[in-house]
Parts: sequence; C-alpha cells; structure tokens
Amino acid sequence: MIRANDNYSKLKASYLFSDIAKKVNEYQQQNPDVHIIRLGIGDVTRALAPAVIKGFHEGVDEMANDVTFRGYGPEQGYAFLREAIAKNDFQDRGADILPDEIFVSDGAKCDTGNFQELFAKDIKVAIPDPVYPAYLDTNVMAGRTGEYENGRYNGIVYMDCLKENNFLPNLPDEQVDLIYLCFPNNPTGSTATKKVLTAWVEYAKENHALILFDAAYESFIRDEALPKTIYEITGAKEVAVEFRSFSKTAGFTGTRCGFTVIPKDCMIYDSKGEKISLHAMWNRRHITKFNGVSYPVQKAAQAVYSEEGHAQVKSQIAYYLNNADIISKTIESFGFDYIGGKNSPYIWIDGAGRDSWDFFDLLLTKAGVVCTPGGGFGRCGKYYIRISAFNSLENVILAMDRLKEALK
Amino acid sequence: MIRANDNYSKLKASYLFSDIAKKVNEYQQQNPDVHIIRLGIGDVTRALAPAVIKGFHEGVDEMANDVTFRGYGPEQGYAFLREAIAKNDFQDRGADILPDEIFVSDGAKCDTGNFQELFAKDIKVAIPDPVYPAYLDTNVMAGRTGEYENGRYNGIVYMDCLKENNFLPNLPDEQVDLIYLCFPNNPTGSTATKKVLTAWVEYAKENHALILFDAAYESFIRDEALPKTIYEITGAKEVAVEFRSFSKTAGFTGTRCGFTVIPKDCMIYDSKGEKISLHAMWNRRHITKFNGVSYPVQKAAQAVYSEEGHAQVKSQIAYYLNNADIISKTIESFGFDYIGGKNSPYIWIDGAGRDSWDFFDLLLTKAGVVCTPGGGFGRCGKYYIRISAFNSLENVILAMDRLKEALK
Repeated sequence: MIRANDNYSKLKASYLFSDIAKKVNEYQQQNPDVHIIRLGIGDVTRALAPAVIKGFHEGVDEMANDVTFRGYGPEQGYAFLREAIAKNDFQDRGADILPDEIFVSDGAKCDTGNFQELFAKDIKVAIPDPVYPAYLDTNVMAGRTGEYENGRYNGIVYMDCLKENNFLPNLPDEQVDLIYLCFPNNPTGSTATKKVLTAWVEYAKENHALILFDAAYESFIRDEALPKTIYEITGAKEVAVEFRSFSKTAGFTGTRCGFTVIPKDCMIYDSKGEKISLHAMWNRRHITKFNGVSYPVQKAAQAVYSEEGHAQVKSQIAYYLNNADIISKTIESFGFDYIGGKNSPYIWIDGAGRDSWDFFDLLLTKAGVVCTPGGGFGRCGKYYIRISAFNSLENVILAMDRLKEALK
Repeated sequence: MIRANDNYSKLKASYLFSDIAKKVNEYQQQNPDVHIIRLGIGDVTRALAPAVIKGFHEGVDEMANDVTFRGYGPEQGYAFLREAIAKNDFQDRGADILPDEIFVSDGAKCDTGNFQELFAKDIKVAIPDPVYPAYLDTNVMAGRTGEYENGRYNGIVYMDCLKENNFLPNLPDEQVDLIYLCFPNNPTGSTATKKVLTAWVEYAKENHALILFDAAYESFIRDEALPKTIYEITGAKEVAVEFRSFSKTAGFTGTRCGFTVIPKDCMIYDSKGEKISLHAMWNRRHITKFNGVSYPVQKAAQAVYSEEGHAQVKSQIAYYLNNADIISKTIESFGFDYIGGKNSPYIWIDGAGRDSWDFFDLLLTKAGVVCTPGGGFGRCGKYYIRISAFNSLENVILAMDRLKEALK
C-alpha cells in the first residue's frame, strides 16, 4: 500500500494569504468603488531594469540560433554569473567567496526549503518567531517536529523577537544545531550589526552548529556600518550558509533567480562525528534534483552587475526605500511604535495590544489599505502588522493620506 | 552538533558523465585534429522554434513595463499554460485531465526527484534497470535503501529490462508500493503498448500501489497505436502521476519548463489506511518549496501549442527521428541487435558480450564518436551502449560513415 509521509498531516493549514485575499475580495464586492491599495504581500511592482531586459532579450536571441543555442547548462549556474556574483556581492565587500562556492538557483524559497534535506532528522532546529513560514513548514514535512499545539510545533526551539530584544533573537539557552537567521528581517525589517552576527558565529563555532543566513533583503541596507553578507564576519565561512535572491534586489519575483553560498570551509558531521563537506553534499543534491536555471534568466541576472544595470536596480531600491520613509513617518506621526523601514522594505507596527487581524480589518475597512496581520508569521506577531513599501509612490502617498484620515 | 543526513554516504559516486568527459578530453588532447562527434548525452542541439522565441521575447517585453510587469505568479503555473497543456496534451487524446490537475515546474528532473518526499520512508520502491539515475539516487537520499552492494542498493526492487522481456519490466513477483516507469524509455528507447500499461494500472489498483510515469519523450512516438499518456488507459487517473517536459518536445533543456499531472482521483493512504489526496499533498509541497516558473518561460512554453509553434516543434522532432533512422539502419547493417530509435531519440545497442566501456572506447578511438556506456544506467546495461539522435544531420551522417569504416 502506498503510504503518505505522515509528517504532512502535522502541517497547520496555511491560510494567511488566502484569508487576506478572501477578506479583501469581500470588502471590494461590498464597496465596488473603493480603490484598494495593497501594501500586504512582499512582491515588487516595478518593471525589470532596462539593462536587465536587454540581457534577457540577448539570452533569448542566442536560443534562436543553432550556433549560439544553449542546451543543458551547468546545474550550479554559468561561470559568467557565478563570477559576477562572487566579485560584486562578496569580494568587493572584503568577503573572500569564490565563484565555485556559489550555487545559482531558481530562487531563495526553493533553496531555503530544500536545504534542510542535508541534515539528520533528529537535529535541534532554532527558528525565529515571527518568521517566513517556509523555514518552519519544510522542517515539519521532514519530520523534525512533533504536533502543532498552542500556535507552535513541538520540538522546534522558537526564538522570540520582540520589542524587549529589539526584534533580534537571543542566543539560545539550550544547545541547538541548525539556526535560521534572516537580516534585514522578513517580516520585522530589523537588522543585525556586525557585533550581533559575530556573537552568532561564535555561538555556532562553540556548539558545532550551522547558521542558515537568509540575506534576501540585503540590497535595502543603506547604513554602511551594517554587514550585507554574513561573510563579512570573521570565521563565518566555517559555520554559515547564505541565501540570496534577485527577487527583491532586482525585481525578479516573477523572473526567478537566486543563489546559495556554501564556503568550502563549511563542515558538518557524520554520525561518528567525522567532518563532511557541506559544499560536496549540496553539490550532490543540486546535480541530482535540479537542472540549472534558464539560460536567458541567467543572462538577465548577469546584467544586474553591469555598470548601467547596477545603477538602475539601485535606483529601484531607492524608490521603494523612499516609500518606506513615507510610511514610517506617517506611522510615527500616529504615535505607533514600529521597527523596520530604514534598511528594509517592511515596516513592523505595534498595534498596542490590538489583535493583528482587528488592525488588518481596521485598515481595510476604514482606509481601503491591505497590510499583513503579524499573527500569520508566528505567535510573537499577534499584536503587530506588517506594511510593505512595494507599490507605486502615488499609491503609497494615497494610502498614507487615507490612514491619516481614518486614524485621526 | 550539526549532523548530516547519513543516507547521502550510501550514494555511489556518480562519475558516468564526468568519466566520459575525461576520456573524451584525453583523446582530444592526444588527437587534436579529430572532430569528435558527440552522440552521448541526451541534450538537444537545435535552436528554439521561431514561435517559441517570439512568445519568449513577448514575455520579456511585458516585464519591461510597470503596467504589464508580472511579479510572483501562481506557484502551480499560469492558467493560460495549464489550459493549453490540458487541452492539447490530454483532452484532445481522450484523456480527461483538467487544467488544475497540472503543476507547471522548471523541469521533470526536479519533479521526479522531489516527488518521493510525499511518501512514507518504509514503502517498497520498484525501479527499472537500466534507469535514469535520478529515480534511484533520490530514494537513496531519502533513506529508502540499504547499502550499495554488487552494483545495486539493498531494499530496492529492481525490474530487469533485457532482451528476454523486450526491455519491458515484468510485473513484480512481490508487492511493491511505488513504481517508476518511463516510456518511451530512457535509456533503451523501448515503448509500451496500451496492453502493457493496462497491466500496470491493474497491478497498481490491486496492490494499492502508485505509478510514477515519466513521459518526457512522448513527442517522439510516431506509431499512432502507442499511448502518449498513461491517462489513455482506463483507471490510470486513480493510480498514476505523469511527468512531462518541454526539454525534448521543444528543445527546452536550457530554457527549463516541465509539468506534473496529478489527477484529483489519485489517492494514497495514511498510516491508518485512510485515503489522502495526492493532489492536495503535492500542492502543499509545491507552494511551500517552489515559487513558480519564470513568466517569460511560461509564455515561451505556451507558444509550443500555437498552430505555428506546434508545426515547428513537430518538424524538429521529425529531424531528430530522421537522425535516429540513419543511426538505426547503420547499426542494423553491422548485424548488431538494438532496440529504440523508432519512437525514441535513443538507440540501445547490444554489444554482444562486449563490456559497455570497451565498446565506448572502441567508438571513441576508432571513429571519434561519443556514445554512453550502458553500464552507467545499471547492471542490466553492462553489455549495451546508448547512441543518441540529438545532433545535426551532417554530424550523424559523418559519425555513421566513420563507424562503417571503423567496424567493417
């Protein structure tokens, strides 16, 4: 009898975005004249940069000719892209990452989701709360948790991120083996200084733990003192993997390209305590279950690193950050506490005891503005909402004007 | 301590294509003047069809404008593509498959590799020999096998495909739960009639088993009596999942698009023997670990189903099949036994007791022609080689002339 992976039955049904959509649709039906402004989902809204479009078209044109046509490429990505990434994103910031330590993929969601396959089932996993749900759900599917009780899965070490700790997880009291970190953070927009990351790298070294560092939002960092990659921290190459994405950096949410950095110095352990190369393991996984990213998409990603491409995507990020400034100032004017928005497209707003779904309903019905209720990201988000800066400037200004009217 | 998934240590190092590359490179260095002709790897060589290129460019152009820009799309694929697939590939052949039973992905390798995640660890898995290695390796990684001994993993039910059974696996003597089938077959090029597939569907029903049917090469079928999809078989919707790819159909090996069909009638069982929807499980997996296929790539795939696109890709397939005819006739003229080449781009040649690596060396050194040694696909391939029709007509003719000279 073909039997299911029973761990799937432990998964709490994830209705966050479908519940939001349902409420928004209902409201729109009842109020057909309202122009609803969506500041909920973290999806970009602006067109790909001209240089990226040019690279993309050139890649397609090469596929149109037998001589320049590309069939199967290297599963790990073309050298031209891996080299551009290593130089621009790492070496130029003093992080000694080599092209063959970079694995190009179709996005950070796939990589952060699949990466846990490399580890034993009974390792101890530490995950922040609130959190991007994929870290958690993929560990549930793999059987690393017990049942779901009181809003949490048994067996996971949750790291509360609250005002008390400036939304930065504390080092765990107990020994953990695998640590998920995300900075600038989704959903809170909090950032980590070099000092904070150094403490995590030291914890990982002392405890023979591994850090999975999600840096999907690094391009929003404008404070030059903040690290853009964990490899700016001495010793991180031995204990950390970094996930990156072109989704938010260059508007690739619908184009699909990201990458994962696994330094060759990074070792894990077999059941006898002998060291194993994590790079070799992921390489084996990658070539067995993945077949590389579309060639024209890799050409488009390469263009992000050209002189004009770099300037264009930088201006897109500046555009969204300007939106974030406008949102932050408005929220501040209401007297709400918030974090994020400075080095992040997300603003995480303290509802001052108001349940996040009530706050969501208020913004929708009073202002026609869609946010994301923080409760959807974990127990610690129950009294928060997330507002995203991904929309047009015009819509952001309009949304803020409406909020001023609604909340005055 | 961060410990590894120990199952990875069971994996036999897969050196097939790297060993081939090494031998070819060595030979080329020693014989720099020889124009080596590669009929080894199953990679297409011809440019994307003009209609596909047009759709691809149009998709890129839409990404260049804020108004038509697409961010995150549905993880399962855009409706325009799922509808085109359901109509053209299934409904028009009498197979009652609906658009929402189709999950668009970045290729059949990912899907065939990832699909086993949905099942319990202790199910019994049946895999043909010779075989596309990903079916096997992904089950090893998931812990469904014992150690590798005498060329095989303990715990797997291997289904020998030899001349005696016309390279069609026999129904297992023991009860198995998960069955991998691939027709037209990679590597042998064998095909399955409706009668053969009906027997498998009946076996699956009687044994509450599930068939994973890899139909990546269906477009090479020219015998109209042969089924192009397993859903042409009555009852298959309850016991079979089908994997498809645009890689060989439309030359997408470097463009990356495929899809998986999971009929809603298809049920598996939980540990209590209760039915579970496989469609719902894969949907949960897909939305958790995958973020959809690049929008311009989906537009390119859609163009395969346009009137002109269909005619163009059909003519590409005919081109490769003409190559296969030329190779088959040459092999036949030598008196070698072979299978495939009629409804498949692969010709599987019996070396008449010659070890497949010796045969490989012979073709390389005497004729400058690269094939794939059958031993790389499993124990049953030890005395076979695979020749692929994926190359230009000119190269195929030249390769066959050289073989005639070398083997006369």
